[in-house]
Amino acid sequence: MPLPAKAERGDGSLKIDASFRIAFAGYHEPRLDRAGARLKRQIQRQTGLVLLHASRSAGPATLEVTTDHESKAVQELGEDESYTLDVSSSGAKLHAANPLGAIRGLQTFLQLIAITPDGFSSPAVHIEDRPRFPWRGLMIDSGRHFIPLDVIKRNLDGMEAVKMNVFHWHLSENQGFRAESRKFPKLHEQGSDGLFYTQEEIREVIEYARDRGIRVLPEFDMPGHSTAWFAGYPELASGSGPYAIERQWGVFDPAMDPTDEKTYKFLNEFIGEMAKLFPDQFFHIGGDEVNGKEWDANPKIQAFKKSHHIKNNAGLQAYFSGRVQDLVTKHKKTPVGWDEVLVPGVPKTIVIQSWRGVDSLAAAAKDGYRGILSNGYYLDLGWSAARHYAMDPLGGPAATLTPEQKRLILGGESCIWSEYVNAENIDSRIWPRNAAIAERLWSPEGTSDLASMYARMETESTRLEWLGLTHRSFQRVMLQRIAGAWTPGELDALRALAQALEHEKDYAREASASTPPTSIAPLNRLVDAVYPESDDSRRFSVLVDQFLGSSCKDPTVAAQIRVELERWTSIDDRLQALAQRSHLVKEVAPASAAISQAAKIGMNALETIQKGGAISADQKKIQLDALNALEQQAHKSQLTLPELPAFQKLVEAASAGGVCAK
Amino acid sequence: MPLPAKAERGDGSLKIDASFRIAFAGYHEPRLDRAGARLKRQIQRQTGLVLLHASRSAGPATLEVTTDHESKAVQELGEDESYTLDVSSSGAKLHAANPLGAIRGLQTFLQLIAITPDGFSSPAVHIEDRPRFPWRGLMIDSGRHFIPLDVIKRNLDGMEAVKMNVFHWHLSENQGFRAESRKFPKLHEQGSDGLFYTQEEIREVIEYARDRGIRVLPEFDMPGHSTAWFAGYPELASGSGPYAIERQWGVFDPAMDPTDEKTYKFLNEFIGEMAKLFPDQFFHIGGDEVNGKEWDANPKIQAFKKSHHIKNNAGLQAYFSGRVQDLVTKHKKTPVGWDEVLVPGVPKTIVIQSWRGVDSLAAAAKDGYRGILSNGYYLDLGWSAARHYAMDPLGGPAATLTPEQKRLILGGESCIWSEYVNAENIDSRIWPRNAAIAERLWSPEGTSDLASMYARMETESTRLEWLGLTHRSFQRVMLQRIAGAWTPGELDALRALAQALEHEKDYAREASASTPPTSIAPLNRLVDAVYPESDDSRRFSVLVDQFLGSSCKDPTVAAQIRVELERWTSIDDRLQALAQRSHLVKEVAPASAAISQAAKIGMNALETIQKGGAISADQKKIQLDALNALEQQAHKSQLTLPELPAFQKLVEAASAGGVCAK
Repeated sequence: MPLPAKAERGDGSLKIDASFRIAFAGYHEPRLDRAGARLKRQIQRQTGLVLLHASRSAGPATLEVTTDHESKAVQELGEDESYTLDVSSSGAKLHAANPLGAIRGLQTFLQLIAITPDGFSSPAVHIEDRPRFPWRGLMIDSGRHFIPLDVIKRNLDGMEAVKMNVFHWHLSENQGFRAESRKFPKLHEQGSDGLFYTQEEIREVIEYARDRGIRVLPEFDMPGHSTAWFAGYPELASGSGPYAIERQWGVFDPAMDPTDEKTYKFLNEFIGEMAKLFPDQFFHIGGDEVNGKEWDANPKIQAFKKSHHIKNNAGLQAYFSGRVQDLVTKHKKTPVGWDEVLVPGVPKTIVIQSWRGVDSLAAAAKDGYRGILSNGYYLDLGWSAARHYAMDPLGGPAATLTPEQKRLILGGESCIWSEYVNAENIDSRIWPRNAAIAERLWSPEGTSDLASMYARMETESTRLEWLGLTHRSFQRVMLQRIAGAWTPGELDALRALAQALEHEKDYAREASASTPPTSIAPLNRLVDAVYPESDDSRRFSVLVDQFLGSSCKDPTVAAQIRVELERWTSIDDRLQALAQRSHLVKEVAPASAAISQAAKIGMNALETIQKGGAISADQKKIQLDALNALEQQAHKSQLTLPELPAFQKLVEAASAGGVCAK
Repeated sequence: MPLPAKAERGDGSLKIDASFRIAFAGYHEPRLDRAGARLKRQIQRQTGLVLLHASRSAGPATLEVTTDHESKAVQELGEDESYTLDVSSSGAKLHAANPLGAIRGLQTFLQLIAITPDGFSSPAVHIEDRPRFPWRGLMIDSGRHFIPLDVIKRNLDGMEAVKMNVFHWHLSENQGFRAESRKFPKLHEQGSDGLFYTQEEIREVIEYARDRGIRVLPEFDMPGHSTAWFAGYPELASGSGPYAIERQWGVFDPAMDPTDEKTYKFLNEFIGEMAKLFPDQFFHIGGDEVNGKEWDANPKIQAFKKSHHIKNNAGLQAYFSGRVQDLVTKHKKTPVGWDEVLVPGVPKTIVIQSWRGVDSLAAAAKDGYRGILSNGYYLDLGWSAARHYAMDPLGGPAATLTPEQKRLILGGESCIWSEYVNAENIDSRIWPRNAAIAERLWSPEGTSDLASMYARMETESTRLEWLGLTHRSFQRVMLQRIAGAWTPGELDALRALAQALEHEKDYAREASASTPPTSIAPLNRLVDAVYPESDDSRRFSVLVDQFLGSSCKDPTVAAQIRVELERWTSIDDRLQALAQRSHLVKEVAPASAAISQAAKIGMNALETIQKGGAISADQKKIQLDALNALEQQAHKSQLTLPELPAFQKLVEAASAGGVCAK
């Protein structure tokens, strides 16, 4: 994962053992050696083999990598990432035009290594591979919650594993300014609670990313989302202050003053500093969600609008945006902005990042702008991998574009906004679902088999754990914290509860919170510990479809369904005592009751179906209503019951009656 | 854990929330600030609270730490580590003579914080605490398998948590020389496969340890266990070579030449270099397991023995040992050696580390030598925590010593020898059992309630996970590797298998291996992934005792026993398909069959007891024999069935008959 453009299975397999050796031919650079060392480390993690001696052994290499020529000194958009990989029982050969392609091919080779009845090996295969889109990114919001350096790095490892090539680093927000500025030190000193990346650390990340064939795109969001800037430099703001780091979530009034030349003087110097620090050709200037209230309240700004014949705040933002784009261009960078920056007259060089909907992407392309899709790829909204996977940068309105216009659509970026995400749970909010998005952006158009995607995503999920990502392992420690002291049975029940539920979707968490959530509220609740997409629920739903689809209700499948239902029905009882001891368990009592009761309804329906009986229409309505009420009850703990559709199907089938009478 | 010397519960509790603040009074140094920052980080991990703002808030501190005066510039044996801690509903006060005591008290405070129905809090309590022994160590063998720096550090975190104060670092072995020597660079260059600690890294570890109140005792094992030295410096050896890093385990022939003055010239310079690098007063010179074969085979050495009137190789080793001790003393250090160095005439300054038995410790004390106990504390042997806990440095022959002699017994050290231990599984071989040894060395004599120890050890185990130790989480990744691709049911069965079994005890693994194990053999098998002490088995055994002890067999307990037995009986069937696909699962088929069949015998016995029936004496013998045969079968996978005694008890009870007839 992602599926290669073309793969043909050969005969036999290549044994991977302690004699494994990699050799490089053709163009060479230290980055390739490091990639080779990384490959060996990863083979060791995947297999447990000790490759200590392998480098010394003589004879032909197990894997020979040939690279034709160097890639660009600073990685560019659209560089060749293609490679061919031939594995036979006598050895593997990887060929790529440049190191980028070699790096991609090494990951494919790693994915081929599997355990067999006779040891570890890769199947013989011929692969020709290249990406569908040149821009395949992940955006991490380090603004709302600071994300430590090691977490950033392991996510870059994950990106390399799924062949993503842009790390979009959201570095400033109302809640934090996270990059050290030497020209304007009060930005990070007063805008970050001490939680920021030094320039040295930033260079370290850029180098780390380059080693993995990943560009680093910095974003400094302007003119809104900028309260943290004003903690140190209130003179940039349109209001009179005073300003302090924002602690709540949402869209806030503070915005830069677009009418004061000193704003641009400041930004010129600041962008100049950052343009030097970040080598990438592109520079993201944000531009989203300005509510205009500070502008409306400032008579000087009102006067400016009048004197410059600017009709409204959108016009004022366009003016600001144009000035900032000029600065970016002056510092030899190409600007990128959220889709709000797409207003008449904006220079054609800008890249539009489409987040509010898919329409803006197609509209931009029609007008000759380049664009990337993020709408549909917001990982923090808790969608299923299948739902993200269904989003295609060239789908929807973009499907009707001309081939030339389609070429302006560069790819896409998944985004993790960090309102409810910190170092502890961020991996679980990104992975493994991000692998599905990575596949959408790399693999050929029309790659769409969901069962295959999920099967491969599960395998990939394990590989990501070998890289040190904590998207599965984080949960255990969080559940132990929630439980305090527990019996094994209690912890099992809590785990079963956590794995049966998902957090509320989209923006429901703000809406359903009893008190407004803040950046300093602990993320220590069950809602923070559940997976965004429940594997248990997905597997259960597959079982139910299988059961109801079979001509006469397979008893083996029924037994598997019953095991799950029994596990869920017992949760609530088993958690009673723990709820008396821990406020964090007590808090989820409504959800615990909901899953157990819903599972009982499912169990009744299953038994009815198996007996060949039928429930009445009234009974059916009562039970479906009850299920809906239970879902509402789970919301009290800001959780949802993803099994609900499967339970409903069982009730519907029980009502249809006689389906299993023989 | 470890239990304090004296604790009295007060009324009420101290709430721990986001306003938590720590303040220091009295003597101050940066180490205390760092300890405070670490405390806050640990509170955040334990509770999930965000303490970002707390440092700024006004008002009285939640925890006030008063320290009277500084501790020694280089931490010394026997420094005051006592503290008093008073927690009331209005605040906590920690008082210590010096920073060491403060560091110990902070860990106790952390252990008091628990989740409650109303949030997080510490109970009100008055604690007066001090260690029973001044030397409480953990030895890590970095020689046989290299243990990376981050793993060392997290184990130092674990040591701090359980108040251990000596990190004994075994740095040279036949299989590897792990410390950079600038005077003799071929030691690490040719003796380590490139896996060694630079002097800068070593200084980093020493500083990291000092921050946690831990001394670092270096060990360079001589004159045996030294093949890796000879890879670079064959002239030190008693044989003619050539020498290469040893790959197998065991006791080998190569030994330093004790008759050649150039050996001492080399060691003088080498010890001088290391004595400067390691500030600790003590210096460990090894001295164990010399087989003398190279000495016997070297005519020059034979001649030396004759001319110096040395009767045997023990005498020759005593001569060597004496010379090396002189060098250590010359470099202003106090030597420590394994108990082989205790021979007549050895200077009284040396500290004897007793490993071959408890007798040498008492014998040494009688002769006026100081000693530390390691016999009984070898964590790699896979003993239960209870068995380690029963070992007391002042128990056995030492119990009869005079008070003055007893004072010569400084404490003890747990040891993890790394034949079957690497970065991936080392934490699981040390923790949580090491906490029981730490308690033995800290808490008052007579602290011995096993149920209490196990309950507290389980809690401590979770706290250790918060520190980043991987003693529980490592297993998931290893099992996934062993399984390859799996269904959830298969992985559950594999996990149930892993958690039901233990690895073979003592030195059985070498004995039962079909091919001699080596330092480059992969540690990727189930035997490497199981816990040394099975929690499942221990809990099961408690249940069985409870069940058989109750006057008429509690049905609730019987039901719990049945659940476990059913889980185990189904393992083998559920793993059949996986064993066809993975050689690492296939390998444990004998153990998988053994636990499932043994559990069936247990189940039959349980049912007999519940029905009030009885099995015949013949039947009993057949079943007990079968259980023993199944244990032998598990050994084929180098595993054991720790449930066996509980199964045997059930069979015995079923044979007794009528115990449950009502």
